[in-house]
Amino acid sequence: MITQAEITLPAFKRGYHLISELIKAKLPALPETGIVHLFIKHTSAGITVNENADPTVRDDFEMVFNKMVSENLPDYKHKSEGSDDMPAHIKASIIGNSVSIPISNYKLNVGIWQGIYLCEFRNRGGSRNLVVTIYS
Amino acid sequence: MITQAEITLPAFKRGYHLISELIKAKLPALPETGIVHLFIKHTSAGITVNENADPTVRDDFEMVFNKMVSENLPDYKHKSEGSDDMPAHIKASIIGNSVSIPISNYKLNVGIWQGIYLCEFRNRGGSRNLVVTIYS
Amino acid sequence: MITQAEITLPAFKRGYHLISELIKAKLPALPETGIVHLFIKHTSAGITVNENADPTVRDDFEMVFNKMVSENLPDYKHKSEGSDDMPAHIKASIIGNSVSIPISNYKLNVGIWQGIYLCEFRNRGGSRNLVVTIYS
Repeated sequence: MITQAEITLPAFKRGYHLISELIKAKLPALPETGIVHLFIKHTSAGITVNENADPTVRDDFEMVFNKMVSENLPDYKHKSEGSDDMPAHIKASIIGNSVSIPISNYKLNVGIWQGIYLCEFRNRGGSRNLVVTIYS
Repeated sequence: MITQAEITLPAFKRGYHLISELIKAKLPALPETGIVHLFIKHTSAGITVNENADPTVRDDFEMVFNKMVSENLPDYKHKSEGSDDMPAHIKASIIGNSVSIPISNYKLNVGIWQGIYLCEFRNRGGSRNLVVTIYS
Repeated sequence: MITQAEITLPAFKRGYHLISELIKAKLPALPETGIVHLFIKHTSAGITVNENADPTVRDDFEMVFNKMVSENLPDYKHKSEGSDDMPAHIKASIIGNSVSIPISNYKLNVGIWQGIYLCEFRNRGGSRNLVVTIYS
């Protein structure tokens, strides 16, 4: 069985944001066993699963990815949308634009330290849309 | 319900290539709601979803990933298949070797700017095989 | 149809480890056609598909990712769990914490050179738990 919904997230500032509770509040009732697939319909934001307890982990993500994908490479060709745009595309494909999470016993079966991150790579990305597909 | 097919892509030159239309032309009829999973059966090419409008975005992908994963690190041990081989393996695991895309209303439900990229990391990678699995 | 199981992997040392045979030995009987989804319930280890033949490829993964995500950036804020911890979180989101592999003709339908890697990013990560979900 497949159920599907679209979720619009509020605008987040550039950075990495824990959205587990926000997502859970918008999910339909979960099946006993299955998978939830979250797909972000954008090319300058990403979604991943990572540490849910210490907010400085998300700060360090922002710092490390900014070093890894510089905004100031002289060789960039795609510059018309701002210096944060092309690095945002690169980061989106490094982090990925979907996650698939198992459902067990009617709940997301993640590790105790795992949470869902929205990764907002643009300075002003605005609200973001996700497609949620649950299969069981 | 699950349907599956294998697709052989033509050889692409090293770089990032928009293959959305090529893939759509080879997909069977899509269900009303579901997921399509594309899996590339190679360890030196990848598949991702990113910007579909400006070809210079794909040029910048090539440039940035070549800086990020250098071909000339003196510490490489796996060198027998050429200087582009080991970096290709690394890039394949950074980008990923599969994508899962929601199907809604009988179509791929991607954002307006999203397209499917074949990421060819070898200088001469040859044709590449994908397994397409559609579940609904 | 969905079937699910949890697998506990033995502790591996820091690095990249081929676990294809170990995983296959723990999978239930596979359906004729489907997908197997492997999800690691940790934020400092990852799972990917890459080259299965030459062990030096895995050594080079360790070397390159250590250069890409340094342990010694002065700007890290999340340092209380050791210098290998924050880089481990970053690497986990670069590599990813799940893989989805097609099943065809009752077997994992991977390329001839593809194997499943456990990526252990901690110096002493201990045993790791995976959720395996098979749908058909």
